[in-house]
Amino acid sequence: MTEPKHLFIPGPTNIPDRVRRAMNLAMEDIRAPDFPELTKPLFHDLKTLFKSETGEIFLFPSSGTGAWEAALTNTLSPGDRVIVASFGQFSMLWAKMCRDLGFETEEWEIPWGEAFPLERLEERLAQPDAAGIKAVLVCQNETATGVASDVAGVRRILDAADHPALLMVDGISSIACIEFRMDEWGVDLAIAGSQKGLMLPTGLSVVCASRKALAASETAKCRRSYFDFAWHAGANKDGYFPYTPATQLLRGLRVSLDILAEEGIENVWTRHNRLAEGVRRAVRAWGLETCAARPEIASDTVTAVVVPEGIDSADVVRTAYHRYNTSFGVGLSKVAGRVFRIGHLGALDEVKILSGIAAAEIAMRDCGINLQAGSGVGAAIDYYRETAPAALAAAAE
Amino acid sequence: MTEPKHLFIPGPTNIPDRVRRAMNLAMEDIRAPDFPELTKPLFHDLKTLFKSETGEIFLFPSSGTGAWEAALTNTLSPGDRVIVASFGQFSMLWAKMCRDLGFETEEWEIPWGEAFPLERLEERLAQPDAAGIKAVLVCQNETATGVASDVAGVRRILDAADHPALLMVDGISSIACIEFRMDEWGVDLAIAGSQKGLMLPTGLSVVCASRKALAASETAKCRRSYFDFAWHAGANKDGYFPYTPATQLLRGLRVSLDILAEEGIENVWTRHNRLAEGVRRAVRAWGLETCAARPEIASDTVTAVVVPEGIDSADVVRTAYHRYNTSFGVGLSKVAGRVFRIGHLGALDEVKILSGIAAAEIAMRDCGINLQAGSGVGAAIDYYRETAPAALAAAAE
Amino acid sequence: MTEPKHLFIPGPTNIPDRVRRAMNLAMEDIRAPDFPELTKPLFHDLKTLFKSETGEIFLFPSSGTGAWEAALTNTLSPGDRVIVASFGQFSMLWAKMCRDLGFETEEWEIPWGEAFPLERLEERLAQPDAAGIKAVLVCQNETATGVASDVAGVRRILDAADHPALLMVDGISSIACIEFRMDEWGVDLAIAGSQKGLMLPTGLSVVCASRKALAASETAKCRRSYFDFAWHAGANKDGYFPYTPATQLLRGLRVSLDILAEEGIENVWTRHNRLAEGVRRAVRAWGLETCAARPEIASDTVTAVVVPEGIDSADVVRTAYHRYNTSFGVGLSKVAGRVFRIGHLGALDEVKILSGIAAAEIAMRDCGINLQAGSGVGAAIDYYRETAPAALAAAAE
Amino acid sequence: MTEPKHLFIPGPTNIPDRVRRAMNLAMEDIRAPDFPELTKPLFHDLKTLFKSETGEIFLFPSSGTGAWEAALTNTLSPGDRVIVASFGQFSMLWAKMCRDLGFETEEWEIPWGEAFPLERLEERLAQPDAAGIKAVLVCQNETATGVASDVAGVRRILDAADHPALLMVDGISSIACIEFRMDEWGVDLAIAGSQKGLMLPTGLSVVCASRKALAASETAKCRRSYFDFAWHAGANKDGYFPYTPATQLLRGLRVSLDILAEEGIENVWTRHNRLAEGVRRAVRAWGLETCAARPEIASDTVTAVVVPEGIDSADVVRTAYHRYNTSFGVGLSKVAGRVFRIGHLGALDEVKILSGIAAAEIAMRDCGINLQAGSGVGAAIDYYRETAPAALAAAAE
Repeated sequence: MTEPKHLFIPGPTNIPDRVRRAMNLAMEDIRAPDFPELTKPLFHDLKTLFKSETGEIFLFPSSGTGAWEAALTNTLSPGDRVIVASFGQFSMLWAKMCRDLGFETEEWEIPWGEAFPLERLEERLAQPDAAGIKAVLVCQNETATGVASDVAGVRRILDAADHPALLMVDGISSIACIEFRMDEWGVDLAIAGSQKGLMLPTGLSVVCASRKALAASETAKCRRSYFDFAWHAGANKDGYFPYTPATQLLRGLRVSLDILAEEGIENVWTRHNRLAEGVRRAVRAWGLETCAARPEIASDTVTAVVVPEGIDSADVVRTAYHRYNTSFGVGLSKVAGRVFRIGHLGALDEVKILSGIAAAEIAMRDCGINLQAGSGVGAAIDYYRETAPAALAAAAE
Repeated sequence: MTEPKHLFIPGPTNIPDRVRRAMNLAMEDIRAPDFPELTKPLFHDLKTLFKSETGEIFLFPSSGTGAWEAALTNTLSPGDRVIVASFGQFSMLWAKMCRDLGFETEEWEIPWGEAFPLERLEERLAQPDAAGIKAVLVCQNETATGVASDVAGVRRILDAADHPALLMVDGISSIACIEFRMDEWGVDLAIAGSQKGLMLPTGLSVVCASRKALAASETAKCRRSYFDFAWHAGANKDGYFPYTPATQLLRGLRVSLDILAEEGIENVWTRHNRLAEGVRRAVRAWGLETCAARPEIASDTVTAVVVPEGIDSADVVRTAYHRYNTSFGVGLSKVAGRVFRIGHLGALDEVKILSGIAAAEIAMRDCGINLQAGSGVGAAIDYYRETAPAALAAAAE
Repeated sequence: MTEPKHLFIPGPTNIPDRVRRAMNLAMEDIRAPDFPELTKPLFHDLKTLFKSETGEIFLFPSSGTGAWEAALTNTLSPGDRVIVASFGQFSMLWAKMCRDLGFETEEWEIPWGEAFPLERLEERLAQPDAAGIKAVLVCQNETATGVASDVAGVRRILDAADHPALLMVDGISSIACIEFRMDEWGVDLAIAGSQKGLMLPTGLSVVCASRKALAASETAKCRRSYFDFAWHAGANKDGYFPYTPATQLLRGLRVSLDILAEEGIENVWTRHNRLAEGVRRAVRAWGLETCAARPEIASDTVTAVVVPEGIDSADVVRTAYHRYNTSFGVGLSKVAGRVFRIGHLGALDEVKILSGIAAAEIAMRDCGINLQAGSGVGAAIDYYRETAPAALAAAAE
Repeated sequence: MTEPKHLFIPGPTNIPDRVRRAMNLAMEDIRAPDFPELTKPLFHDLKTLFKSETGEIFLFPSSGTGAWEAALTNTLSPGDRVIVASFGQFSMLWAKMCRDLGFETEEWEIPWGEAFPLERLEERLAQPDAAGIKAVLVCQNETATGVASDVAGVRRILDAADHPALLMVDGISSIACIEFRMDEWGVDLAIAGSQKGLMLPTGLSVVCASRKALAASETAKCRRSYFDFAWHAGANKDGYFPYTPATQLLRGLRVSLDILAEEGIENVWTRHNRLAEGVRRAVRAWGLETCAARPEIASDTVTAVVVPEGIDSADVVRTAYHRYNTSFGVGLSKVAGRVFRIGHLGALDEVKILSGIAAAEIAMRDCGINLQAGSGVGAAIDYYRETAPAALAAAAE
């Protein structure tokens, strides 16, 4: 009966109807003389999401993983040393990609639930061979554990050590959701994907490259073609692409950028933070813990809830899916069975996230978790009321 | 940001994505040779929703109000005496229509919150002039107050009095949601609209007419054209219509009938009852009352919640709308300011209705209603868990 | 493979993608405080299509036939004498409706292919009992024969005779396509439907009523409810409706009005005339005749093509449908078998109508009609090139 | 007014409404337990389009260019020698990719308008150093010139020389349109894209790899990650993907595969051939030539029309676009200004392609090309009538 299912995974996220409508269209001529009227403003407007004025945008018909590859192969050479802190499924996979692409990969295995270890980076840069490090890779928001890392902190440490390594940030599940400041934080390569904060289907990935990254791309020796910056830049400057772009997603992107601009990117960040905190209050009301080890590193786009001993978190996800038409994220790899994940990013408001909390409550109760039904919803409601934006408070007067 | 808004009005209801997809189409030739392949099964399958084998279906491009007019003008003559019990906005409007169309209208004003008064009918039929009554009009589900009437009871009383009056039932907000048995209950004219249990946009109304009603239509002297049964029947028998039908809605109807058939109409009724009872548990947990005077007459498709003295229910609706992107039904006419209405009909499941309960909680709290946030959601969750269908309970194993 | 079929019927017409997108939406709250922001401008903007400043718009969830009924029952009383010239299926059905609704109906049977007979009206008004005529009904564009009548001429004759009859115009297949001037021509009731020039699905009908018609509605004694002007006017003035409106069509209407305004209504008329003339050139190139008896009365929205003796026009339509995925209009009633109809109204340009001409050619050849393949297309191309708007001619420079 | 524009480019192609409807959907959980019910049959059913039983399908969220890269990097090692015959924009770009990816690239520059030179391959394989050739790359359908190459012939020559080179085929604008027989022709890597014969938006690319190609991928030393076969195969075997797939396109693909299966792939090939021949007859009737040097190598999916001396083909394309809302393909690179291209692939029937021919006629006339309007349409109509499939001929009986 109910279709679509209630979607609380950390991406793909719910698509606003305006965006969905914009994508309900016929195909179009990708060499049309007026095609650049669509595309050129996209490149421009995307930069506001990255808070970048000096960076350059690349758009690929690929999922976010492709943008990882683009960032790496355009700016590094085979055998280059890179540092990746691995503290969840996605940072771990980025490390795997580094090895597959032939980089000398220093993968730091960090306990899942922790964030990027700034002190360790500080120490590492003090070592004699630090000069060989070409890039530091930071997953700003580890989707598997619901942990956010301090990107600005990484930059501070690099600067303090006067280290020239490129700072690459996986912002797939953070950009257009939580605070991100490309220029201010000195990020060299930032990566986003369409199916998260951009509220689009999967299939479009974005790289924002700093001037330094672009300079690096001129000497980088990795073999590349599909994701080659130069090939794209050549066509992009006139509003075209080196091969057929995904016009349906570009049309959707136009509307999602409009929606984000109407709200204002800072307000988007604030909204994500406020909705996320409601979820964390709910978790506390249930007497449970988040996978994020400390409140300061809790992600504002996804919360991984640790289930009590003796409970299999996969049961919660299965129960929600089969009985209550609701999708939560499963625990992946090292935290399989121990956590389930509530995605709270993209097109979301209080009532929608309250329904996700309610769904979690009923499913957890079914699985024998001892909590009071309604307690999480109540805690979140109380929090949302306390923190209602003034604008909202005035809305109904 | 959030679009569409969360919709908890008692119609138009939420459209399942399968239905929405089916209506995303180009126009088609309404005289095409294969057009009857679409239309003929619709007439057949609609009868299952009415639980009628002997009735005949008429489909009008109109809203439900048009089907009221069709039922009346096809089977009655000017000056005919009709009885309408008026106990809410919609039964009241039906009485108004009767007067406008020139019938001798006995409008029984019943307190809002009460149902069709069976005893009064019994008494009325015992009066000497009862023979002049040509029709008894029953609003099965009064959408304004959340009250369901006993249609089978009306038939029993008519039969006990051996009275030949036509039994007309407004089932707009009940058919395809709550129990309805055209043939078994001896209903002569039953009326449905597309935007309720059929989970379609407004614009298609349905009349199911008994053999007795069809016989009456042959001598009924009301002037009619657009809604004329005979004109329609003549074209319908070949699968066509006397004037251009709303093909987009017919294509949507095909899918909504499929969805209802997959669930089974009795299961649809059971689901509505169970979800509704959860809402009533929530109301009780809040310490509030429903507008429906007694539990036995509470509607399974809409609950009118009475707000405490000193509170304006319109504030709750406004707050929900402006602050929380949520639409509830306002109190209409006699209950304006006193009730707000939670619609729970059509494409709905536990999580969706829990979000409506949560939205009501947060909005009521904002309006100064003293209730514990989460209490309604908790009560509903507990009820849904207790009453989980065996099939569901097994689903996640 | 090909879906949808190529549609060249005189309605429903092809829906522009922008309109289709606008209707791909969730249901909404029809009592929402901001609902009038949608509806009020619709009432205003619709008047531009009627070229009326003083008229009042009524919008019904019904097909165009319902608007006929609205025009009649709101302004006339039972037994009133009306004149209907019947020269095609639709004018004939309007006469039938008049009889069904209880009017004293003077149906003038005119040869199909002819237009409204101005001289006969002149003579009729000169007769002694002319004062009893309450309304003159004119089908501006008879869809069955492809004939346009002279509405302004009817007004001139009524005025010359100083006759107070209401002038009612069926503009279903003409308004928003061919010239129509409500105020200037002194039309009292003009009727339009969504599925023609408005390029929407069926289900929304429009009446524009003059001040005189509104005055008549205050004393008109026909029983009415669903289509009652007063009931609507009461709700419309605040931007609402007396019963649930078809929101999906209203949202589509917003966009179709925008599209028409962008082109400019006079340009819309010119475009229809120019495209239609191309079709007529094609018919001549084929060596065939139109059903319209004279060029001056040929319709700019539909052309009924007379097939040669010995050919069944239904074969052409069947062949086009089954072999070539193309819908043309069949010959109806008196011209069944003799004509097939090419609809050329709504969202249409040169290339689209050329494909309709080509489809007619291939289907007619298959049916044994002796014409040179390509001749009609060639004649139309030559005409379109000769008459290219200056704006277009400059477009490609 | 007209939107979308008439699309006659060689991809993206027109999307059937059934496919478009299927993609009008909400996002879904890509780790859901029932997700493989969607995906597993896709892998299976795609093989029918390649006429392969032993091959393995890989699906990438990328445009077709990504699949080129996948084919190359999964099966070759840096420095491997590959042969690419370059006779159009797309074969030329494939050669560029080979160089960019670090292969020893033998690019054979062939006159545009010619096909893959079988004799030259024969000679080349007879040379002493032929053993070093690791792969032969064939563009089955060169979209820039409208030329089809003889893939089976390449295999015959490789086999005759008993040469072990991998045979890679760019089938982006041919597969699911014109004859392709993976297993029978001994193709090792065949590449398709969603926006051509699959009638989907851009964004999904397909590689079908032979057992021999899969074996090669185990030792191939090119660095790869995003497009890595092994990473995909590991996840695909359970119906999942190594990173987020484009679910909207997968849902659309399900329907496009259904549509193709309903017609039957051989019938799809026959239809493309018949429609294409109609276009060629039109070109001849205009007194013009195709870019394809000889009829035997003319493509059945796109026709590049050579304009007369003194005419700029870009004018024809601009005129069609700006005046007639029609997109044709421009002449690219070496044939810029000399040819314009009519795409005739994907969801297409007689009437649709006739409209493309008519659009070409009117635009060419506007640009001063001396041809008789209607001549091309007439020639195509005559051809289509002569060659009507028996099934169609019977359809209208």
